[in-house]
Amino acid sequence: MLQPPLIVLMTDFGLEDAFVGVMKGVIASIRRAARVIDLTHAISAQNVRQAAFHLERSVGYFPEETIFVCVVDPGVGTARRAIGVEAGPYRFIAPDNGLLTPIFERYPDARCHELTNVAYQLPNKSATFHGRDLFSPAAAHLAAGVPIEAFGPAIPLTECARMKMFRNRPLDDGNGWQGEIIATDHFGNLITTLEGSMIADGVGWTVTVGNVPPLPILRTYGEVETAQPLAYIGSSGMIEIAIRNGNASKELGIGEGQRCELKRVHL
Amino acid sequence: MLQPPLIVLMTDFGLEDAFVGVMKGVIASIRRAARVIDLTHAISAQNVRQAAFHLERSVGYFPEETIFVCVVDPGVGTARRAIGVEAGPYRFIAPDNGLLTPIFERYPDARCHELTNVAYQLPNKSATFHGRDLFSPAAAHLAAGVPIEAFGPAIPLTECARMKMFRNRPLDDGNGWQGEIIATDHFGNLITTLEGSMIADGVGWTVTVGNVPPLPILRTYGEVETAQPLAYIGSSGMIEIAIRNGNASKELGIGEGQRCELKRVHL
Amino acid sequence: MLQPPLIVLMTDFGLEDAFVGVMKGVIASIRRAARVIDLTHAISAQNVRQAAFHLERSVGYFPEETIFVCVVDPGVGTARRAIGVEAGPYRFIAPDNGLLTPIFERYPDARCHELTNVAYQLPNKSATFHGRDLFSPAAAHLAAGVPIEAFGPAIPLTECARMKMFRNRPLDDGNGWQGEIIATDHFGNLITTLEGSMIADGVGWTVTVGNVPPLPILRTYGEVETAQPLAYIGSSGMIEIAIRNGNASKELGIGEGQRCELKRVHL
Repeated sequence: MLQPPLIVLMTDFGLEDAFVGVMKGVIASIRRAARVIDLTHAISAQNVRQAAFHLERSVGYFPEETIFVCVVDPGVGTARRAIGVEAGPYRFIAPDNGLLTPIFERYPDARCHELTNVAYQLPNKSATFHGRDLFSPAAAHLAAGVPIEAFGPAIPLTECARMKMFRNRPLDDGNGWQGEIIATDHFGNLITTLEGSMIADGVGWTVTVGNVPPLPILRTYGEVETAQPLAYIGSSGMIEIAIRNGNASKELGIGEGQRCELKRVHL
Repeated sequence: MLQPPLIVLMTDFGLEDAFVGVMKGVIASIRRAARVIDLTHAISAQNVRQAAFHLERSVGYFPEETIFVCVVDPGVGTARRAIGVEAGPYRFIAPDNGLLTPIFERYPDARCHELTNVAYQLPNKSATFHGRDLFSPAAAHLAAGVPIEAFGPAIPLTECARMKMFRNRPLDDGNGWQGEIIATDHFGNLITTLEGSMIADGVGWTVTVGNVPPLPILRTYGEVETAQPLAYIGSSGMIEIAIRNGNASKELGIGEGQRCELKRVHL
Repeated sequence: MLQPPLIVLMTDFGLEDAFVGVMKGVIASIRRAARVIDLTHAISAQNVRQAAFHLERSVGYFPEETIFVCVVDPGVGTARRAIGVEAGPYRFIAPDNGLLTPIFERYPDARCHELTNVAYQLPNKSATFHGRDLFSPAAAHLAAGVPIEAFGPAIPLTECARMKMFRNRPLDDGNGWQGEIIATDHFGNLITTLEGSMIADGVGWTVTVGNVPPLPILRTYGEVETAQPLAYIGSSGMIEIAIRNGNASKELGIGEGQRCELKRVHL
C-alpha cells in the first residue's frame, strides 16, 4: 500500500471530553500509519437519522479505500450488533441501527460482517464506550489489512437494520411535498429533507416553514436584502432556509424535526 | 519535495457540521500526502476583519511553504473573486474581500492570481460552499505542485480588496489612542486593536474600557488579586484586558466592536 | 526511527481561538514529521485536577513513545516551573503544578527535568502563552531526538508539585464513601471520583447525589426506562450518573465539585 490508510470519524461525542482523542490513541496503537480525519463529532445526541444524512452527503468527497467509523449508538450495551461493511470503494464500521441505510441503498452489492471476533477488540470491553473498545480497533485492523471476513460472520444486507431516511409525503392537493428540518448548521441555516432534484431549476416553487410567508427558491443569499429570509438549494443538494447575514434557526424559532412544505406556485 | 505539504485551514464554519471534514476529504482526494492543520474554525460569522487579525498574528509560527486556506466569505455566490497568493515563503487561498490585507502589507512583492481555471475546481460548483468546491481543491492542487500561474490571470496587488485593519485614532487631547475590541478569547479576555509596540514597556499608560476604572498595564495575571481586572500586552502582541481567574467579557459585559482607550498617565 | 513521533495535546484553551492551531504550527516548524492528536482542549478553565483525571484515564490508550503536552496552567507567568518527564514508555511536558500527579504515582521511577534551556524555547517568550513559546517547542525538540537531560537540571520527583487526586472519605457510619463530581461529559453524564473497583460487581451499593433517590448501580442504560436516572461504572472505570436519553447535569442541576455518596445497601 503506497498511500497511508485514511480513517474518517463521525460521532455524537462532542469535543468536550477525551472520548475522540482516546479513539485516535487506540487507532494509532494498532495502526500507527493511519491518518484520521474528523467528519464531525457534533451529531445531535443519539440522532441516527441526522448521522445517516451527513454521512450520505459526505462520502463521495473522500478518496477510495477510506474507512468510515460512525458511532451514533443509542443501543450501546444492548444486543444491537456491530457491523463492518465493504461498499463500493469504501468501508464502514458502525452499529447495526440503520445509520448505514443510505450506504446500503447506494451500494446494493455491499458485503456486511458482524464484528464479533474479540481478537480485533480491546480486552475488557466496556458496556458504554464501544467507540473506543470495538469500533476504533476494528477500523485500525481493517486499515492494517485484516480482511472484513475475519471480523465475524456474514450478515445478508436484507437483515441489516434500515430506516426511512426522509419522511416526505405528497401534499393532499397533489401540488407539492411536506418535509421536515433534518439539521441546522453552524450559521443557523435550516436544512430540509426536500431534495433540490425534486424541482429542477426551482422556478415556480415556494417553501414554507412556521409562520414565514412562502419563500421563492433563489440561487444565492445576494438575491435578498440583509436580514431577509430566503430558500435555496444548499451545498448538500437539499433545499435550505436561511436569513441573509442572520441566524434563521434562532430568529425564526425553528429547529430539527419541524415540518416544512414545498409548493408549486400557481402562475 | 522531502516534506509532506502542509495546508492550514481557517474558516467561520464551526465544527457542528460536516463542512470542515468534507474540505479535508476533498484535499485528501486530490493530494493524499498533504497534512492539514486547523488554525481555527470559530471566526465570528462573516467577520473578515477578525479572520485577518488571527491570520496576521499566526502566520509566522508556521513553517515555510505552508499553504493557508482562509474562508470567511460573506460574498460567496456573488461576483467577488477568489484568489491565490504567493507571499514570502507562504501561499494563501482566499476570497478577494480584504481578508489578506495584512499579508499584502507585510509582503508588498506578493503575486496574486484569480482562481478561474475550472480544471482545479470540483465539477458542479455550488453557489454557497466554495470552501469545498473551489478553495480546498485549489490548495490541494498547489500542494501537488501546480504553479500559481496555472490557476488564472494575474491580478495586480493594487487591485485586490483591502480594508483598514485597526481603526485606532489619536485622542483629541493628543494623549493616547482610541481603539476597539477586535476579539474575545476562550477565557473571556478582551483583545484590543491597540498594539503593545505603541507603548514600549507599558509604564506610564492606562487602558479604559466601559465603566472600568483606568487599568495600569502589568506583566502577568499574578500582579493583581483574584477577580480583579488588569491590562497587559498579550501573547499576540496586542494590549488585552482580563480578569484574573475570571471572564472579563462576561463579567464586564463587553465584547467585539466596543471602544477602548489607551491614555498616557500624567505623572 | 521508523514511526513518525506522536505528540498529544491537552489544554484548557478551547477551539474558539487560534491558540491550538498556532501550537501545531510551532511543532511543525521544528519537527515537521511529528503527528499531533488532540486529546481535548475543553478542560474547564484552569482546572488542573480535571486535566490530571482525563490524562490518567487516557494515557494507556496511546502507543509507546507518545509525548503528552499538557497545558492547564493558572500559574503561567509566575515562578512556577515547567517540566519534562520520562515515565515508563511515555514522555510528558507540563507546568509543575500537580497536573502530572497520577503519572508520578503510576511511574515512581519517572525522571523529571526542568525546562530552562532557552535553546529549546521560542525567542521572545511571552508571559501568558507558554503553550506556544515553551511547551510546544519542548515537545517538538523531544520528538526530534533531543534527550530530556538537555532541557535543564534534574528535579527529584519528591520535589515536584503533587495534589490529592480524589478527595473521597469514608462515611461516618463506615458504610460507604463520600466523593464528588469531577467532570460532566458531552451527554451531561456526571463522572464521580468514586472508582468502580471500590465495589466489585456493584451489587449491594447505591449512589446518591443532590435530591435524587438512591440509585442502584446497573450495567447499561437499557436497564432503566427512558428519562430515568441511573448509576453505572463508566468507560473510564469511575462510577457515573446519567439519565437515559437525557442530560443528567442539566435535568438534575448538578455539576463539577458537587458531593455524592456511595452507600452499602442493608439487604
